[in-house]
Amino acid sequence: MAEHDLQLVARSIRSFPDFPIPGVLFRDISPLLKDPDSFRACIRLLASHLRTTHGGKIDYIAGLDSRGFLFGPSLAQELGLGFVLIRKRGKLPGPTVSASYALEYGKAELEIQKDALEPGQKVVVVDDLLATGGTMCAACELLGQLRAEVLECVCLVELTSLKGREKLGAVPFFSLLQYE
Amino acid sequence: MAEHDLQLVARSIRSFPDFPIPGVLFRDISPLLKDPDSFRACIRLLASHLRTTHGGKIDYIAGLDSRGFLFGPSLAQELGLGFVLIRKRGKLPGPTVSASYALEYGKAELEIQKDALEPGQKVVVVDDLLATGGTMCAACELLGQLRAEVLECVCLVELTSLKGREKLGAVPFFSLLQYE
Repeated sequence: MAEHDLQLVARSIRSFPDFPIPGVLFRDISPLLKDPDSFRACIRLLASHLRTTHGGKIDYIAGLDSRGFLFGPSLAQELGLGFVLIRKRGKLPGPTVSASYALEYGKAELEIQKDALEPGQKVVVVDDLLATGGTMCAACELLGQLRAEVLECVCLVELTSLKGREKLGAVPFFSLLQYE
Repeated sequence: MAEHDLQLVARSIRSFPDFPIPGVLFRDISPLLKDPDSFRACIRLLASHLRTTHGGKIDYIAGLDSRGFLFGPSLAQELGLGFVLIRKRGKLPGPTVSASYALEYGKAELEIQKDALEPGQKVVVVDDLLATGGTMCAACELLGQLRAEVLECVCLVELTSLKGREKLGAVPFFSLLQYE
């Protein structure tokens, strides 16, 4: 089943050259979302990996604004967990902490609410894609500011030639699909 | 069960005055996402409404960037349907159509991929909150450009005093919770 699921996921990601800027090959997850079997397979694969790797140790799934929002709540539900929002700057009310980062193309700042997690709580971070790892690194830094423990970062797609995984240092990383 | 579900949802939405600008009472859905039972209840209520109202007639669930992304894929899965992304400008690769709109605070533009839907396909649009209705209206206009049929727009929260529902005209609208 896992092999079939992975085929479903792989088949439902398409590529657009030179988007959003020349030289970037954009991986489009729209067909994955549009096909309920592929989306289900994707969530099942991520959940299965997390169950095997961490058992019942995960307290929350955290997801990145905005494509991490497409997967995080479904993944959290599949594991019977709650979901915590990591947002772009200025979107979250109340006291927040923030971390800035450089993107594959551009710059941005992430925020999380101070009461989102308590010190020592164990979190897995989900996003759609790992490129240079800047966004994911900023997410880990944010969670560190709350003294939460990042058990692992997971993505659907990893662009291996950009070496984002190395940037994450000691934080474990898992991806369903790897492209150069 | 529906009454209990609705209580769970209502209890997990909190309010922040004067965010993001003075005079706006911000409804924060973070606690709803963080509690798996409340999130599950929310999806169950929306799915139940759509099943009762439209039976098997819905082809796709469409969701708005970025908080509609938190609910759309889970709602689509609950109904066995695919999810279609409506994004902020410049985020979607390939041929797109766009529509601009005024927000409760600010301005923006929405886009959808031209191949997201075929003419005549029946869609329900989901977002977290209906304020003035500008975003939802732009979403309906976008879907109209693709000649898709919007069966209904649904939100968790409706700010009734802003009369967004009236702006949607003949398009049916449903919300789980209504605030002034």
